[in-house]
Amino acid sequence: MSKYNVSCPSGFPEWTPAEERVYQQWVSVIRDVFEKNGFMPITTPLVEREENLLSKGGNPKEMYVLKRILDEEGDNSHSGNALRFDHTVPLALYVARHLNDIAFPFKRYAIGPVLRGERAQKGRFRQFDQCDIDVIGSGELSLANDAMVAAVIIQIFERLLEGEKFVVRINNRKILTGFFEQLKIKKKDIKNVLAIVDDLEKIGHEKVQKNLLEMGLSETVSKKILEFTEISGTNDEILKKAEKTGLLQKTGLNELKEVLQALRFLGVDEKKFKVDLSIARGLDYYTGTVYETTLVGSEGLGSICSGGRYDDLAEIFTGKKLPGVGISIGLTRLLSKLFEAKLVNVDRSSPSHFLVIAASEGAKSKCLKIASLIRSFGYPVENYLEDKKIGKQFEYADKLGIPYAVIVGDDELSKKCVQLKNMKSGTQKEIVAKDLEKELKKL
Amino acid sequence: MSKYNVSCPSGFPEWTPAEERVYQQWVSVIRDVFEKNGFMPITTPLVEREENLLSKGGNPKEMYVLKRILDEEGDNSHSGNALRFDHTVPLALYVARHLNDIAFPFKRYAIGPVLRGERAQKGRFRQFDQCDIDVIGSGELSLANDAMVAAVIIQIFERLLEGEKFVVRINNRKILTGFFEQLKIKKKDIKNVLAIVDDLEKIGHEKVQKNLLEMGLSETVSKKILEFTEISGTNDEILKKAEKTGLLQKTGLNELKEVLQALRFLGVDEKKFKVDLSIARGLDYYTGTVYETTLVGSEGLGSICSGGRYDDLAEIFTGKKLPGVGISIGLTRLLSKLFEAKLVNVDRSSPSHFLVIAASEGAKSKCLKIASLIRSFGYPVENYLEDKKIGKQFEYADKLGIPYAVIVGDDELSKKCVQLKNMKSGTQKEIVAKDLEKELKKL
Repeated sequence: MSKYNVSCPSGFPEWTPAEERVYQQWVSVIRDVFEKNGFMPITTPLVEREENLLSKGGNPKEMYVLKRILDEEGDNSHSGNALRFDHTVPLALYVARHLNDIAFPFKRYAIGPVLRGERAQKGRFRQFDQCDIDVIGSGELSLANDAMVAAVIIQIFERLLEGEKFVVRINNRKILTGFFEQLKIKKKDIKNVLAIVDDLEKIGHEKVQKNLLEMGLSETVSKKILEFTEISGTNDEILKKAEKTGLLQKTGLNELKEVLQALRFLGVDEKKFKVDLSIARGLDYYTGTVYETTLVGSEGLGSICSGGRYDDLAEIFTGKKLPGVGISIGLTRLLSKLFEAKLVNVDRSSPSHFLVIAASEGAKSKCLKIASLIRSFGYPVENYLEDKKIGKQFEYADKLGIPYAVIVGDDELSKKCVQLKNMKSGTQKEIVAKDLEKELKKL
Repeated sequence: MSKYNVSCPSGFPEWTPAEERVYQQWVSVIRDVFEKNGFMPITTPLVEREENLLSKGGNPKEMYVLKRILDEEGDNSHSGNALRFDHTVPLALYVARHLNDIAFPFKRYAIGPVLRGERAQKGRFRQFDQCDIDVIGSGELSLANDAMVAAVIIQIFERLLEGEKFVVRINNRKILTGFFEQLKIKKKDIKNVLAIVDDLEKIGHEKVQKNLLEMGLSETVSKKILEFTEISGTNDEILKKAEKTGLLQKTGLNELKEVLQALRFLGVDEKKFKVDLSIARGLDYYTGTVYETTLVGSEGLGSICSGGRYDDLAEIFTGKKLPGVGISIGLTRLLSKLFEAKLVNVDRSSPSHFLVIAASEGAKSKCLKIASLIRSFGYPVENYLEDKKIGKQFEYADKLGIPYAVIVGDDELSKKCVQLKNMKSGTQKEIVAKDLEKELKKL
């Protein structure tokens, strides 16, 4: 036995090849939709200056700082750097770095790993991929962007979650804070109330009520909050009922209406977005529209994609007011939940459609040619190149989930044909060489 | 001015969006070719145990170790971890972790960043992406894999470097070491001679001769080495001339011949691979076939893709002999050189083909619909959503390199048409709504 502990460090998992293939397919759909909507790819470094990360919300308990084991004399250029913990602070730094070159509104996407030294626990990772889009305005940014960003998310999940129903739930922070102010809740308490209400979906009515009472709100106020955040119906009905309370903050309401209107103009299916007055989002910096996305019937999985509107991306770095709206898919966490809940199918490990097998020594060189030919038709294909019995070669195809074997032996060489074996059904078919492309196309 | 230094930490650069788009296109071609050849994607964590990295060649001067600023009491699970500096050691660890599940020969690819705390200098990065393929055998691995791996690289650069000529230069370590042994060069000196000879392309005949003499070889021996490593001609001619020296190691020669033969069976263009007896590769662990890839006419850029055959991937981790053959593209370094040498074109920043512009307030909602429609045809498209003069909107399209503007004002609304403006030529064309798909297809 090896003296080395070769396991992954705690919190740093890896996918199986089959899971990884799903992951890659998801990334490619997400990337395609981002680009179809005009978002530019930006990849910032994994490493930024520690002080910059700390000044925009970096948690010193979770941030990974880089050291070298042996530091060369006089080379201090490594110290003071740390690993990014999200894509938002790097975006702020990117904008600060390139302020004069950027054409606003600035639409960028970022896909890649972020690292947080959180306590390791199930479903929590210390390295995980996030897929972010943001639109940053210079001074101002139209509300239509809030709709566009939601529409992008809907396009993505319409392609990724065929059959699974999902809904983007939308609210506006100003509606909630305005409502709380009308209820005379103290300014300092509002943050707490927002956090409690935000958990409504997760912990349910009773617990939210209990938490509101425990934080010192009266029964009347708690009841009003719950009645308000639980208003249901169609999007228009919810807004009407909310307006009837007489406690609605006008700006927030108008913003939300404008976003809904734009979503309709964009042709988004009304079933895919829903006003939900309980959505608050924990983070302080959201100031308007907020989104969460849930799987209908699997709400327990939590939000699969969240975001919102903020007033200030990077003023501490740029001295300028840059409002933005963005949304993020926590892809590692999301897929790990979906795999576990069997809501996404993981099929085979290998990308190969065909394994070309030489059934005789003399067929080996021909098999190299045949694989190249099949590849030229556009299919993923590989040769089995080792000297093993044919049974071993079928085992290899089975283990990797390669669906078809193409077998060539001396017989096939003389008859100028191949045997095509369906690895699942076991059925085999002889195909003459000149029909190969046509026959493979039929599969 | 901001008190923060927002620049990227030294050695951690970022692409412009236009460069990043090329980078993404390259990754997608590389990934596609890897998969078309049956390589499975594996993404190992960025972080591995420090002792594992150090035990397989990690340089303690360059390795980045992770620390947290504030470590929670009793949580030691973060210490002793470091960032990967290549994909090979993580591959060895992956194989050790999954030894019983892996179907051999194991063909995996890895694309992603690795980190090295090298001294910062031009063209050197502390974070850079590598694209690796390896085939790992259990006990044995056929030489046809050495050809297959070279064929993959040739497929990649045939797609990426249209017009640019490149050549994969192939040698076998055993030929060189055998030749040096025949010349009675001492075992302890062979490593040095290999390193000197490996620089032949880079530093030229004179300097290599000088270095060989300086390390203590006689003039006769130095001359023989240079004559041997400079043998030129077609692949077959080179082998014949080398054989004539009578100093050729048989195993190495036969291996090389077998690899060349397999490349021919694979249908690879003979102009794309070339025997070069000077190729040695610096790294100790190569034991047979070695490759370098150079751009014809830009040899000064150095090898754009290198690799070779090794006897032992991971014995220290697995207790098993696992031979392998692999090759790596240092994509960040390569593209940064190609951009600088203007050998690869960088065009526009934005993926959008069309910018939809509302020329009147009343046209805004219609413009959202039109962009959605164009997107449904499959094109990347975006709306300009801010309240700016039309000149500003054209400026935005120009700055991002969006090639076409689709303009709709009150006139177009009433006539049910759009104006299509070619941003480069400035020409404009009226298109009636029902012809939109057909007309855009013509572009």
